[in-house]
Amino acid sequence: MEGESALQLRIFDLNCWGIRYLSKRRQERVELIGDTLRREGFDLVLLQEVWSEQDYNNLKGKLGSRYPFCHYFRSGVIGSGLCVFSRFPILDTLLYQYSLNGYPYMLQHGDWFCGKSVGLPRAGTGMVGDITVSLFPLSHQLHAEYCREKDAYLPHRLVQAWELAQFIRHTSKAADVVLLGGDLNMHPEDVGIRLLCGWTGLQDAFAEATHFEGCEDGCTLIPKNCFTDKAELLPFPLGIRIDYILYKAISGFTVMCKELKTTTGTAPGTDIPFSDHEAVMATLHIKRQGQAASDTLGTAEPMMADVVTEAQTEVGVGLRAAQRQRYSTGRMAVLALLLLLVQATAALGTLVGLGTEQPFPKLSFSLLAFAAIGILLLATCLHLFHTTEVKMLQGTEEQMRMALRALQERP
Amino acid sequence: MEGESALQLRIFDLNCWGIRYLSKRRQERVELIGDTLRREGFDLVLLQEVWSEQDYNNLKGKLGSRYPFCHYFRSGVIGSGLCVFSRFPILDTLLYQYSLNGYPYMLQHGDWFCGKSVGLPRAGTGMVGDITVSLFPLSHQLHAEYCREKDAYLPHRLVQAWELAQFIRHTSKAADVVLLGGDLNMHPEDVGIRLLCGWTGLQDAFAEATHFEGCEDGCTLIPKNCFTDKAELLPFPLGIRIDYILYKAISGFTVMCKELKTTTGTAPGTDIPFSDHEAVMATLHIKRQGQAASDTLGTAEPMMADVVTEAQTEVGVGLRAAQRQRYSTGRMAVLALLLLLVQATAALGTLVGLGTEQPFPKLSFSLLAFAAIGILLLATCLHLFHTTEVKMLQGTEEQMRMALRALQERP
Repeated sequence: MEGESALQLRIFDLNCWGIRYLSKRRQERVELIGDTLRREGFDLVLLQEVWSEQDYNNLKGKLGSRYPFCHYFRSGVIGSGLCVFSRFPILDTLLYQYSLNGYPYMLQHGDWFCGKSVGLPRAGTGMVGDITVSLFPLSHQLHAEYCREKDAYLPHRLVQAWELAQFIRHTSKAADVVLLGGDLNMHPEDVGIRLLCGWTGLQDAFAEATHFEGCEDGCTLIPKNCFTDKAELLPFPLGIRIDYILYKAISGFTVMCKELKTTTGTAPGTDIPFSDHEAVMATLHIKRQGQAASDTLGTAEPMMADVVTEAQTEVGVGLRAAQRQRYSTGRMAVLALLLLLVQATAALGTLVGLGTEQPFPKLSFSLLAFAAIGILLLATCLHLFHTTEVKMLQGTEEQMRMALRALQERP
Repeated sequence: MEGESALQLRIFDLNCWGIRYLSKRRQERVELIGDTLRREGFDLVLLQEVWSEQDYNNLKGKLGSRYPFCHYFRSGVIGSGLCVFSRFPILDTLLYQYSLNGYPYMLQHGDWFCGKSVGLPRAGTGMVGDITVSLFPLSHQLHAEYCREKDAYLPHRLVQAWELAQFIRHTSKAADVVLLGGDLNMHPEDVGIRLLCGWTGLQDAFAEATHFEGCEDGCTLIPKNCFTDKAELLPFPLGIRIDYILYKAISGFTVMCKELKTTTGTAPGTDIPFSDHEAVMATLHIKRQGQAASDTLGTAEPMMADVVTEAQTEVGVGLRAAQRQRYSTGRMAVLALLLLLVQATAALGTLVGLGTEQPFPKLSFSLLAFAAIGILLLATCLHLFHTTEVKMLQGTEEQMRMALRALQERP
């Protein structure tokens, strides 16, 4: 086996921070990313936050000769921002949209409008011995963390991490190697990462790499990068690691990470960065193995049960918050409806002729009615939204309960 | 091989028509369904349109001894309405929500609020020889067809059929046998059914059954049923077949449908039906096979290319309609904004003192402003909605194009 040649796979992963009109020096950076990718010649390029389809088309035009195969995943109002460039044919794609992704009224955070998803382009790659290796290079991004101390989105991110893990478990059987690259918006010790890796058996390229070169601790959001928010990184002088390349061999194969690199605040040979995130570049060696690997979890079972329990507790906290919000928006809708009914009764009374004079000034009366209608509509929409949220959190909690039962029942 | 014993699997599928306050004699029918299922003892029960969680809980209580394993899929505002009862353990579940599902403003059709989805409960079943058979009993429902002549939802239903087919292709490798039961809201000759069966290789139990007993042509929505809309069925004197049990063996197994039955307007031994749909009951024989089946399409490739092209054309029609709606809602939002600006300028002019008298009556002025704000908000929401719709239809069209290319390139 040792003598057999391995397939070497070079992967580039980057959160491109390509928000139209908002991201600084966007076009210049997209040009730079395109030039670098064309020069370097990776095998697979996984990009996130390419929100502008024009940017994608520019990259596509520039990279066509090096990476003849590419795919842009469309979803949500703005788009998923996910795209993949590949040296190997992309045979098929599937997009899975997370069921929860923040709140539409949190306009300043905008996650809801992006339709965050995991994209699954199935790519057939080169030959290892006489076997074609299929890859599932999932490129994705979970809900952002805006405040670590009081993280209102933690339950949503955990639902996403769980759905991502379940999606990988259910789709990975068709692949020989699973690859996951993206901005997970979670620190390595966070429960979401432990859940994802533990439940799927995915391995962290940073932890497994034989050789590492880049930012200390593999950080991908660092104070040295001129585009990062320095205040946000104050508690983390070295920066934080939230972009990952994860991998797993399914059966008959082994994968090893020979080298992992990150950029260190600027793009190589220039004075501006690719993005506010650092790029992550991995070199993987894929080899054929004699026996098929069994379908194991990534974490020992008793520990995995603890992780699932921890995640379930957090989802439960989110569920209770969502139930409170569903209740208060429902109450507000009922109050607005009552106000409207009182007004309608008063207006009807006046019309019928119980009083010949107008008891209220017409203007304030109509303004009040309009305000009540507005509140009624808004509260009803929010109530429906939170009802969906409650259902999804309940569903996830139940799935986690089922997983815990399965873990406990294993021989 | 012939001598080896086969696993016999009895499946019950029914669209329960369980809409709270709207469906006639709902509680009585749910009782009846529960009693029948407890008496009959199927192996797998796939139910749709169980919108009330209370109904599910009643069924769960009643069926616990016969079907110790069950799952209710939560999604959308109202729920997915999908549930599964099983004699075999349900090991794991995954819910895939279709990216398009009608319009939120079509309140009378309500599909949007249901979060239509495909539920994937992975069940391990009994033994065939020394092998455990895994089943993927997908229970699901596609967008309803309200008017066959001018079917505005056809593109959405085709997107759903395509997503369902892709979901099955990507998740089925982990199973030995795939089962799909549900109300597909499509006639057997419709492009959506041909696409689904052709692209996944699923077989129609009605077409394959050795023995059939039930409504003529296997219809599941018949004029004889007292709850069906007779006017809707006027062009189809025998009724229509829109509820299916589809199956496929993945590898090392064969599946045969020995018997298929439908109810015929009333539940057996009573004078009321289970639902406005007829129940479909199949008896499948699963056998171990020597060699692994290869991953083939269900339809010959040149024919499959025609089916995909036909579907793509329909999706294209939907795309152009969505683009028109996106444009007209965007234009309406801009007009409302302009009106508001004109009003603001006029109000400002009065305030600054260009005229000491009030040029407009205060009441109509404010009413107009409120109407403009209302239209602006509504048009913006609709514009965002249709933008998402356009993105999804474009995404599906591209996936279909990719599939066509793959079909043409096959040796």
